[in-house]
Amino acid sequence: MTSAPNRKTTAPSVLALSGGIGGAKLDLGLYHVLKPWELAVAANTGDDFEHLGLTICPDLDTIMYTLSGTSDEVRGWGRQGETWACLSQLKEIGGSSWFGLGDKDLAVHLYRTELLRQGKPLGEITGNLFASFGIKAQVMPMADQPVGTIVHTTDGRDLPFQRYFVEERCAPGVRGFTYQDAETATPPTALLAMIRGGNLRAIVICPSNPFVSINPILSIPGIREALAASKTPIVAVSPLIGGAAVKGPLAKMLAEMGLPASNRSIADQYKGLLTGMIIDKTDGDDANNQLEMPVLAVNTLMNSLEDRKRLAQDVLEFADRLGE
Amino acid sequence: MTSAPNRKTTAPSVLALSGGIGGAKLDLGLYHVLKPWELAVAANTGDDFEHLGLTICPDLDTIMYTLSGTSDEVRGWGRQGETWACLSQLKEIGGSSWFGLGDKDLAVHLYRTELLRQGKPLGEITGNLFASFGIKAQVMPMADQPVGTIVHTTDGRDLPFQRYFVEERCAPGVRGFTYQDAETATPPTALLAMIRGGNLRAIVICPSNPFVSINPILSIPGIREALAASKTPIVAVSPLIGGAAVKGPLAKMLAEMGLPASNRSIADQYKGLLTGMIIDKTDGDDANNQLEMPVLAVNTLMNSLEDRKRLAQDVLEFADRLGE
Repeated sequence: MTSAPNRKTTAPSVLALSGGIGGAKLDLGLYHVLKPWELAVAANTGDDFEHLGLTICPDLDTIMYTLSGTSDEVRGWGRQGETWACLSQLKEIGGSSWFGLGDKDLAVHLYRTELLRQGKPLGEITGNLFASFGIKAQVMPMADQPVGTIVHTTDGRDLPFQRYFVEERCAPGVRGFTYQDAETATPPTALLAMIRGGNLRAIVICPSNPFVSINPILSIPGIREALAASKTPIVAVSPLIGGAAVKGPLAKMLAEMGLPASNRSIADQYKGLLTGMIIDKTDGDDANNQLEMPVLAVNTLMNSLEDRKRLAQDVLEFADRLGE
Repeated sequence: MTSAPNRKTTAPSVLALSGGIGGAKLDLGLYHVLKPWELAVAANTGDDFEHLGLTICPDLDTIMYTLSGTSDEVRGWGRQGETWACLSQLKEIGGSSWFGLGDKDLAVHLYRTELLRQGKPLGEITGNLFASFGIKAQVMPMADQPVGTIVHTTDGRDLPFQRYFVEERCAPGVRGFTYQDAETATPPTALLAMIRGGNLRAIVICPSNPFVSINPILSIPGIREALAASKTPIVAVSPLIGGAAVKGPLAKMLAEMGLPASNRSIADQYKGLLTGMIIDKTDGDDANNQLEMPVLAVNTLMNSLEDRKRLAQDVLEFADRLGE
């Protein structure tokens, strides 16, 4: 008689929806407090753009560099120990140099672009890249197809996100957003299966900008519906602290669209999805925020790795309580 | 009454047909002994290829780095003070790394590829690039359109030049060459005007490989015909010294095609074009070589800058005598 070997479970137990910088910080906290394979991330690719013929996926790369410990924590973007020989030569010869292309970073863009040109899906390429960086979490782009976040400005223009963000430094007023070609994009099969499977411990909406990081993910047909139907606790961490964003144009955007810079405005973006919300402890209690759902107020500012792990732990324990 | 100002003539007086390494050495000698704007170069682009989505023009780049004094003389290719952060990262993530892409060199490929994608002609892009490197010689690609040197091997394959040269390290036997899409390519208008104008002091065929550097240039419709009809002295410098090439597979190619490794074999490739030929002094005199044209035997090995300038001076004086 033989006994069946213990089958080691390496299926993800936590799914995070994540943008770049802020999202990646909580992803890293979760990656540390969970077993590496327990974390799955659906990442925003609405910021992706073409530059010098290269397909650049800023949020995927930020998550990759952050989870692998190769990101530059001081500069806040890109790679540790990065060099800039190519970019400085590009400047000298009059080439386009508005985007900060590091020499190491370039290798990732060249690799990805070459495989896309060969017809490989972005999800598969992303899997290869994360594996080559030694990352065991399952990180997926929100779709294999390009979906572009368009910023509609108060002066009547429709700007692709990178033009708004980098070239125009978020100066134009915004009146809304659309996610170009989202209606024909398809979410990763593994992502839908994970949400629908009912085996997750928690689904976490990272403290990313709803308009340009999370809503693009929710715009991919099937994802919002699957989340709304899920019995898994879904917890959003608010990106606002005292009505301000830690980084980025979120508060400015809310004001320009006539929305209060409040946690309620964030929750409204995720209407019908949330089981609970985590807000910063400086923002008081549920009553103050009119969130009409269970709320946990903790320290949501993530400066150190310890902060990230602590917040990740808070998120998981809150979700566990909500799921009881 | 006003007198007309003296109009400074900056038209080229010498045209060189040139491949990469060996050709660029003589180009540099000519660039030094002439006034900078007196040199024009028609460069081989039959070696050009696509790598990681980048259009790479090895001979144009070698000439650019050589004339600007930024080439790595010790390594023999690429840039001085080059760094390799991108390539080493590419290797780490399993990307294609067979081609030695330096970080600075990459900037040139990115710049060129981006402008080609925007529809700019290669000639115009080349002009911009050379100007940004401070080069005052007029260097032109042999055509704006891609023309690819194909190596027909004795084992029956048709290999694009870079596959033969880099991937297969010139191992396959060769039985001939074709220049793909040459028949529909057009030579630079300025090049034909220069050859036909009758104002040149000399036309120099550099000591490059006839099969993979010079014949591709001659394959562009109109160039060979214009040269054959020209009254300007046309002088070829043989790339052979004592039946061997200084660098590269020329002697091996001649043997595989059943041709003697002789200056006569080189001259035969330029039949109907040459006014005279310069051979190495170790190769004896005209009678030995059966060249049936005026021959000058000098030291053709170019190790130092002084060697290059001396050979350039020899070429010009020889052409001047032939033109008398």
